[in-house]
Amino acid sequence: MLLALAVLSGAARLLGEVAQRFRQPAVLGELLAGVLLGPTVFGAVAPQWQAWLFPAAGNNAVVLDAISSLAIVLFLLVAGLEVDLSVAWRQGPTALKVGLLGTTIPFGFGLAAAWLMPTALGRQADADPQIFALFLATAMAISALPVIAKTLMDLNIYRTDLGMVVVSAAIFNDLIGWTVFALILGMIGRQGATLAVATTVALTLFYAAAMLTAGRSIVNRALPLLQAYTQWPSGALGFIVTLGLLGAAVTEHIGIHAIFGSFLVGVALGESRHLQERTRMMLEDFVSIIFAPVFFASIGLRVNFAAHFQAPLVLAVLALACVGKLIGAYFGARWGGMSTRDRWSVAFAMNVRGAMEIILGLLALEARLISEELFVALIVMAIVTSAAGGPLIRWSMRKRQRLRLSSTTSPRLFKRALAASTRFEVIHELAELAARSADIDRARIEALAWEREKIAATGIGNGVALPHARVAGLASPIVAAGLSHVGVDFDAPDGQPAHVIFLLVTPLENATAQLDLSANIAELFRRPHATEHVLRSANYIEFLAALKMLAPKGCEV
Amino acid sequence: MLLALAVLSGAARLLGEVAQRFRQPAVLGELLAGVLLGPTVFGAVAPQWQAWLFPAAGNNAVVLDAISSLAIVLFLLVAGLEVDLSVAWRQGPTALKVGLLGTTIPFGFGLAAAWLMPTALGRQADADPQIFALFLATAMAISALPVIAKTLMDLNIYRTDLGMVVVSAAIFNDLIGWTVFALILGMIGRQGATLAVATTVALTLFYAAAMLTAGRSIVNRALPLLQAYTQWPSGALGFIVTLGLLGAAVTEHIGIHAIFGSFLVGVALGESRHLQERTRMMLEDFVSIIFAPVFFASIGLRVNFAAHFQAPLVLAVLALACVGKLIGAYFGARWGGMSTRDRWSVAFAMNVRGAMEIILGLLALEARLISEELFVALIVMAIVTSAAGGPLIRWSMRKRQRLRLSSTTSPRLFKRALAASTRFEVIHELAELAARSADIDRARIEALAWEREKIAATGIGNGVALPHARVAGLASPIVAAGLSHVGVDFDAPDGQPAHVIFLLVTPLENATAQLDLSANIAELFRRPHATEHVLRSANYIEFLAALKMLAPKGCEV
Repeated sequence: MLLALAVLSGAARLLGEVAQRFRQPAVLGELLAGVLLGPTVFGAVAPQWQAWLFPAAGNNAVVLDAISSLAIVLFLLVAGLEVDLSVAWRQGPTALKVGLLGTTIPFGFGLAAAWLMPTALGRQADADPQIFALFLATAMAISALPVIAKTLMDLNIYRTDLGMVVVSAAIFNDLIGWTVFALILGMIGRQGATLAVATTVALTLFYAAAMLTAGRSIVNRALPLLQAYTQWPSGALGFIVTLGLLGAAVTEHIGIHAIFGSFLVGVALGESRHLQERTRMMLEDFVSIIFAPVFFASIGLRVNFAAHFQAPLVLAVLALACVGKLIGAYFGARWGGMSTRDRWSVAFAMNVRGAMEIILGLLALEARLISEELFVALIVMAIVTSAAGGPLIRWSMRKRQRLRLSSTTSPRLFKRALAASTRFEVIHELAELAARSADIDRARIEALAWEREKIAATGIGNGVALPHARVAGLASPIVAAGLSHVGVDFDAPDGQPAHVIFLLVTPLENATAQLDLSANIAELFRRPHATEHVLRSANYIEFLAALKMLAPKGCEV
Repeated sequence: MLLALAVLSGAARLLGEVAQRFRQPAVLGELLAGVLLGPTVFGAVAPQWQAWLFPAAGNNAVVLDAISSLAIVLFLLVAGLEVDLSVAWRQGPTALKVGLLGTTIPFGFGLAAAWLMPTALGRQADADPQIFALFLATAMAISALPVIAKTLMDLNIYRTDLGMVVVSAAIFNDLIGWTVFALILGMIGRQGATLAVATTVALTLFYAAAMLTAGRSIVNRALPLLQAYTQWPSGALGFIVTLGLLGAAVTEHIGIHAIFGSFLVGVALGESRHLQERTRMMLEDFVSIIFAPVFFASIGLRVNFAAHFQAPLVLAVLALACVGKLIGAYFGARWGGMSTRDRWSVAFAMNVRGAMEIILGLLALEARLISEELFVALIVMAIVTSAAGGPLIRWSMRKRQRLRLSSTTSPRLFKRALAASTRFEVIHELAELAARSADIDRARIEALAWEREKIAATGIGNGVALPHARVAGLASPIVAAGLSHVGVDFDAPDGQPAHVIFLLVTPLENATAQLDLSANIAELFRRPHATEHVLRSANYIEFLAALKMLAPKGCEV
């Protein structure tokens, strides 16, 4: 059991990292890890070993199952925490319109398709056709709020009006989507249930309403008390997790799925202005580092993706999902009075699916509502839309990818202890590093940087200086970095000498590279004690690690 | 399952908080939560409900079991991280002597007692007497490093020479104790094992040696690379957890218990100077907030503490454990050349048991080595020694309990917006609050504080001022706090006006109260942006919560 968990979480984290390296959501890599370790690859190559490590039945399977359910419950608790109803409210009519059309139109498409050709779309023979249709409609309609939020943050448009409209619409979408889906699950999983469907629906709506009114205000009052009178952060975190599990238990007893309960607890909590950002981030880290990788990787263990991959079905689901969502969101944005360009950006953003579709599909598979073929198609759809989301939004906004500092540095471009004691000498030393690694003339870089430096000194304060040279014909931007323990005067506004100096050498033709890099670096050194922290680096590896640690959440180096 | 987990974790956190409020380790409250929810109390009052919520068999029990094992593995990973071999090394001979005698003498006592009267001490009829004797000896010898460290930190002597000797001796103790115990477990749990005991012993020692040499240096090289080239902190954390699980899996395959593997991984990692303090703290929080409460509470579920409580046995175990450990550690300290007073402090500190004895007992119980009566006795022993540790050390060092700020403030002693614009007016306003709540004359406090203020202004910088008055005949210290958004000049060394002002009113007879409070407050406001953070508080509750958040790890408000 321990070995299985170790292999699963290790592989998932590793491939999650690789995915993020390629600016893709981590969930992609985590899914892939499961596919590699599951029947699709590992099972095909060495079936006995695979069955030994990940047995399909017995205590191990039960435990892995339980950890997965716990992971989904906690995942939706965190997803709920990201839902800020007051933000959605402030965006008002536009967000509501996008949310409304962006939900109902794909829902309608899904419903129609499921009624017209249920078997082709992978309905299980013994599944109720109405419930199947409702499921497919929901699967087409639901967005993935966390992935959307992450994509927008990567593009640095999360806090813009456009970003807020998309997020608000997605919040609306989530609330509706999960309520409908919880009801669907309530309708199928009721062998031996004592409550009638109507009662379940009534109780569900009652729970949702209670959570969003009374629950919200109780939580809003309890949180500051907890933070004042218990240990920080364990008191508040323990309370949130316990409440999430309780909510999950309540909805499960009502007869709908546990996730809906923890999701609404998250929504009720997320809105409280007393919820400290640090508490929220800690919980998010808990879940995204320990639970989520195991969960998403375990998906790959359940199904043989190669055997159940049906190209026509995958394409049909993909087309159905994208067309419905794009049309809905586009016309919603038009109705809300947005420009054509913004409409497309909104539509592409709303089209991003991810973790949510996967959870949805998994629950439907477990409830024997859909075939494994449809499950595979849904997962492929989720992967494709979330991978394509970022590039498509960027394209529609004609926005370039932000340059990251780490892609322009290298061990050869780093000097641990600068010998220089003046600005000119620093530039001389760093220009030499840059010249060696970019194969251009040192004197040219030096002259350009010095010329720029003479116009206005480039000390930006907090012990950092950013001299720069824009060189014609340079292939790609390079940054030479050096540490000076004694400090060199770069005439910074705060009067402090510079200890960490970056020489930015960017192509003359690329007007934005220098801005990107300066912004990136300035962001890092806004933290208190950042310079001391970086100065402690003994080599390039430690230097890079120190920079990573300084990056605020959502900002990448 | 979800409900059971919610109830368990909620109750455990709640009682853990209560225990900490009384300056006791959280584990005490967590254990108590289990006792209340288990057969001892809840089961005795409402057996059907108890059996429904926490069934003794079936999938739920399997899952709870698995979560417990996972919790122990992670708990020992974190315990291993706290082991810093280089610290132990620096303390040299004294620590070694304390560790040596503090381990072997209680071990000898335990061995002798188990041989002389095995049945009276609760050996299971079918258990091997030699293995039982080894187990009891280990249980008497092992200390609880995390609880010891926490106790020393609470007393503010962790970083002193005395503290370091104790911690180093406990590290030594842990290494020996867990190695022996792992071997014992290896010797019992070998139905159908293919390896001979000698092979297991050899492999165990090989694993330990490899981990502490090659493993250490590999980890030391891998960590900075991970921190530089993966997302922070998820890359490093994922790596640590995966490695811990892998280590656990390896030792389990060797035939000894999983915990030894993760413990040694922790030791190998804990020593790396590249392990960032923040990464370590995050992992510690993961485990202590989510896993540890569930684990310790689940202990109470297993055994009926009332039915298996045998006073003579409990007293015998308690006496055996304390006498052996105290004698061993005392003479070890004497051998190391410490003063009589220090010898007692060291002995009392080494006598602290806790989580480790409980884990040890649980594994022995599961291996059917000990009776439930002995298990209960071991747990009581762990609880008593860890609860008594702090007071006993304090007594031997003649050290008083540090005054906490939060015990001297109250909603009535807080003013959100001071009207004052001068030092004198601020003191006037705050003295009024203090006078009302302590029933002394306002004018008297005001005069004393102002007299003190005239000698030297009490602005301490960072926007904080600490005017104070020492009043004869005051029952207990009180602190009146006020916020000033405009700021009042208190002649601080950094020239900043004071925004957060605490008027410390302490008894004339209590010379240290004012020092304690000033030190406590100064510690909080050393953080950057502390004053802005506190100024945002809308009422007393938020003010207290803000102060809690500012407290550095290990410092309590």
